[in-house]
Amino acid sequence: MSTACPADLVHFAEELAEASGAVIRPYFRSHPPAEDKADLSPVTVADREAELALRALIEKRHPSHGIIGEEYGSVRESASHIWVLDPIDGTRAFTTGKPMFGTLIALLRDGQPLLGVIDQPVLRERWLGAAGRPSTFKGAPARVRSCPGVGRAILNATNPMMFKGVDAAAFARVQAAAKQTNFGGDCYAYGLLASGHIDLVIESGLNLYDFAALAPVIEGAGGLFTDWQGKRIERGSDGHVLAAGDAGVHREALGLLAAR
Amino acid sequence: MSTACPADLVHFAEELAEASGAVIRPYFRSHPPAEDKADLSPVTVADREAELALRALIEKRHPSHGIIGEEYGSVRESASHIWVLDPIDGTRAFTTGKPMFGTLIALLRDGQPLLGVIDQPVLRERWLGAAGRPSTFKGAPARVRSCPGVGRAILNATNPMMFKGVDAAAFARVQAAAKQTNFGGDCYAYGLLASGHIDLVIESGLNLYDFAALAPVIEGAGGLFTDWQGKRIERGSDGHVLAAGDAGVHREALGLLAAR
Repeated sequence: MSTACPADLVHFAEELAEASGAVIRPYFRSHPPAEDKADLSPVTVADREAELALRALIEKRHPSHGIIGEEYGSVRESASHIWVLDPIDGTRAFTTGKPMFGTLIALLRDGQPLLGVIDQPVLRERWLGAAGRPSTFKGAPARVRSCPGVGRAILNATNPMMFKGVDAAAFARVQAAAKQTNFGGDCYAYGLLASGHIDLVIESGLNLYDFAALAPVIEGAGGLFTDWQGKRIERGSDGHVLAAGDAGVHREALGLLAAR
Repeated sequence: MSTACPADLVHFAEELAEASGAVIRPYFRSHPPAEDKADLSPVTVADREAELALRALIEKRHPSHGIIGEEYGSVRESASHIWVLDPIDGTRAFTTGKPMFGTLIALLRDGQPLLGVIDQPVLRERWLGAAGRPSTFKGAPARVRSCPGVGRAILNATNPMMFKGVDAAAFARVQAAAKQTNFGGDCYAYGLLASGHIDLVIESGLNLYDFAALAPVIEGAGGLFTDWQGKRIERGSDGHVLAAGDAGVHREALGLLAAR
């Protein structure tokens, strides 16, 4: 994130979030027909319609930009600017009526995250991170908090079942050392970390749709967002994420994850 | 819940929820002083001030009623009507900025739950259950959903770490059989069950403050709220809760919990 993100792209990203939110809100807590058609669940319909709305806006305003969307695939992947879209991150939260899912919108420039949005359309809460400016929450600056060590840290993960084998053991080491471990949250937990309410988020199994938007929000709030080896997450990363508000806590957590 | 709850007590319960919400809202996501004084965390201050506000209202309007509060103890425990108060259920959610904690207000008549309120003051969402009337969510009827079996059920628990020893094994049996298991939620998950978004909530370690308010909400929405033996929960119960929207799912879950 060396060069600042142009203001018009930031504004456009907010416009995109408004558009997807308008599509998604009516489907939240809407009951599916008694006959449970797996293919036409409210979350699937909302996901698809929101992505189509986002793609239409991008095609209209920035026809040269590429798009990578979870539901409708990729176009112009060799473009310098590529939008990465996940209309509903946190499907389980969405389907159980918990307003803690989010819409993830990211823009990559030459493969590097240029901006990221975490939008909660029901609560109308939005985190936005963009190169060269501080991250914001509902328009006001968002800032991570400092933390003296993992032993004083609040750790969050969406679901303990996401960790298998050695990953489960690695997570358990940090969990045993942390002051407290809470579950649930999906992308919303990363937003809360960016706002200084959580100290650590450790997860696995994330893909490009997830982390492309999260990194700019957390880094622009003063936090660290890496894989379990401390490396910057790129396209093609293995899906392990270690996000921390405090550099010392990040270092300590890396050590715990790596210990045998 | 044989005799209907008088309307004036229902209205008074809503008035109580309004009062506690007004106290709690400003403390949500308020950052504590840099020096972390365990006794003066925002959650503790909010909890205490909200309970004092509730007690003052009860003393003024219903001076003959008893009160059992989590922070300030019991008065007039031999009264026919006793209010049971937990201003902030879901402390971990509150302290990490997740708007999924709740204020629990219950009224016991001759030891039996007469009404219960689950109030989420930040989202201004409220479930209310009272003897002789259907439960409501934000004033509209709340109703559980039917579910053909545990294999199709969405199960929720606040934190997997709440189960120890044989309890952990019992929970794991239901988890293995359920379609999906999600974590996080505290009292909010019981509200979502009453509204038909979740099929099963299984927890342990709950106390009178927790379950006194939950039972009327779930029962008035057509659901079942028992301990792990299928018995109605009374004061002095062992804190194990099995809540289900569907009677068949409840029966099946009881069998799984009891299996050796």
